[in-house]
Amino acid sequence: MTTTALVAINSPYPFWRLSDRHAGQLRSAFPDVRFLIAHEHDVPVEIRTADVYFGWSFDAEWLKTSPRLRWTATPSAGVDHWPAAALDAAGITLTRGYGYHGRPMAEHAIGLLLGFSRGLFTSARLQTWSVWWKDLLADSFFDLYGETLTIVGCGSVGLRLAEVAQAFGMHVIGVRRSAPRSEPDGIEWVPAHRVREALPRSRAVVNLLPATDETHGFFNESTFKACHPGTVFINLGRASTVDHDALLGALDQGPLVGAALDVQPRKPPALDDPLRHHPRIVLTPKSAVFSHAYMDQAVAFFVDNLRLHLAGQPLNGAVTPTHGGTHAPH
Amino acid sequence: MTTTALVAINSPYPFWRLSDRHAGQLRSAFPDVRFLIAHEHDVPVEIRTADVYFGWSFDAEWLKTSPRLRWTATPSAGVDHWPAAALDAAGITLTRGYGYHGRPMAEHAIGLLLGFSRGLFTSARLQTWSVWWKDLLADSFFDLYGETLTIVGCGSVGLRLAEVAQAFGMHVIGVRRSAPRSEPDGIEWVPAHRVREALPRSRAVVNLLPATDETHGFFNESTFKACHPGTVFINLGRASTVDHDALLGALDQGPLVGAALDVQPRKPPALDDPLRHHPRIVLTPKSAVFSHAYMDQAVAFFVDNLRLHLAGQPLNGAVTPTHGGTHAPH
Repeated sequence: MTTTALVAINSPYPFWRLSDRHAGQLRSAFPDVRFLIAHEHDVPVEIRTADVYFGWSFDAEWLKTSPRLRWTATPSAGVDHWPAAALDAAGITLTRGYGYHGRPMAEHAIGLLLGFSRGLFTSARLQTWSVWWKDLLADSFFDLYGETLTIVGCGSVGLRLAEVAQAFGMHVIGVRRSAPRSEPDGIEWVPAHRVREALPRSRAVVNLLPATDETHGFFNESTFKACHPGTVFINLGRASTVDHDALLGALDQGPLVGAALDVQPRKPPALDDPLRHHPRIVLTPKSAVFSHAYMDQAVAFFVDNLRLHLAGQPLNGAVTPTHGGTHAPH
Repeated sequence: MTTTALVAINSPYPFWRLSDRHAGQLRSAFPDVRFLIAHEHDVPVEIRTADVYFGWSFDAEWLKTSPRLRWTATPSAGVDHWPAAALDAAGITLTRGYGYHGRPMAEHAIGLLLGFSRGLFTSARLQTWSVWWKDLLADSFFDLYGETLTIVGCGSVGLRLAEVAQAFGMHVIGVRRSAPRSEPDGIEWVPAHRVREALPRSRAVVNLLPATDETHGFFNESTFKACHPGTVFINLGRASTVDHDALLGALDQGPLVGAALDVQPRKPPALDDPLRHHPRIVLTPKSAVFSHAYMDQAVAFFVDNLRLHLAGQPLNGAVTPTHGGTHAPH
């Protein structure tokens, strides 16, 4: 029986949208698969005949009308907005993407870090009215070379970030729930429950934690207090993993000297949100994963997985629901 | 006869100042050398007995009262403010430092580049008043990965910059007067007179040119016109190598999308200088070479050279005055 794959990868942004070229690529790679390329509003109807679904999001309601569905795939690295438990209960595999978010996110993280360490944000903000701010920067800059970067939630994105941080001569501490099976050269691994041993030795902390019950408020008053004076904190993970009142306190009373947030508790933040107005916070609009190479890589990842699916093999990036969240291998 | 070395490395900034620790280091490395550690205003007197001078600057007037002087050394990479021709005429060697400016300058250049490519400067400036600027960034960001960086005046600083740019997956074109003797892996070399062949292929251009008659106005209307649409231009060299009216034109009418200037024609620029107020220019206050490791490395470089000097060997970083400038080996 023919496999039907419903693909609903829509976005206002071309780099997050399935193009005609991508659709053609799928069809020529799998001449025996029936592809339905759909807009999001067509999904509730089209899902009825689909064996496979590839899209940005999934509504648990659709489970009622998708008797043939066996596998749902998202290009996204995070699946906190997916009904993982319901899919699991229905015997439907959920896969997330990995391996291609790292490049743009590493560029974003290093850019934000250097923006603080070299006084670039200060410069961009002062240049129009300050006569000369050289002394200010001389008092506040720091070298990346020789400093330590701690990456919390260090999976495949973190490994790419580690690679470029090491090129700058930084020492990298990777924090994750459990040590990885293969240990890349030069990264020091610290288990998540001992993160307070890593923070006092670090000049920069990049948070890549997913949103789960376990990670909720991971960065709170006590976590920030454990940081080294002069630390820059960068959140490219999820807003729920950070207590933002504690963050503001740690900026005003120390030990943090700067923070960059690609995710915020409210999106967009209200115009009077203090996170917008703190002079040592930089906000980016969830743009860390912007990449013109995104969809090419996401489609290539899906193609590999579809080949495995058709061969009855285990899929890459399969997500296992756990208490209060999901467990993903990468 | 005892060698006397006059050391006048003063600065308002601790990282550019000879500390007591450094002075002790010099004295213990060379117990037979007489070190005079001076403030700048004592130099005209102290220079009378000096065989060697190590300082930030040199006044040609001092040549009249320094009969024993054979070698002047500066920690600086640039010597455009030194009286190179007068020193040469007096048979006095001038050496510049190299090998330790690259690390901070590479951090600065990549930070400025990522500030534009990831929309970080736009974010820092818009976050206080723009409801949400995600669409704006989606329309204007670019990946470093896979793009080409051209480094103009690619000496030892450029090589360090190339190394980190390559870690991000950039292709690097090194532009210099003549090809280097040893070619580091993966850099494509283009002679300076053919720079217009490199520019249309590049997404970012970092200028590291020294100030000489030859380099004056190197970046002019026609150079900028040769750039690829969407290019970011970063000047960490000397302001005299750039025609700033042409730069403003290239930002307003294309092909440049952003420019960062660590050096400006007037220091500091007047408060109404258009360079301060262009929305796609970021100015830094000649801070690219700020590094807390600076003086340790500059002193180590001087120690190596002083050893060579005492042994009558040729010195590292010796500068040869040429027509309208100097020729430095690195």
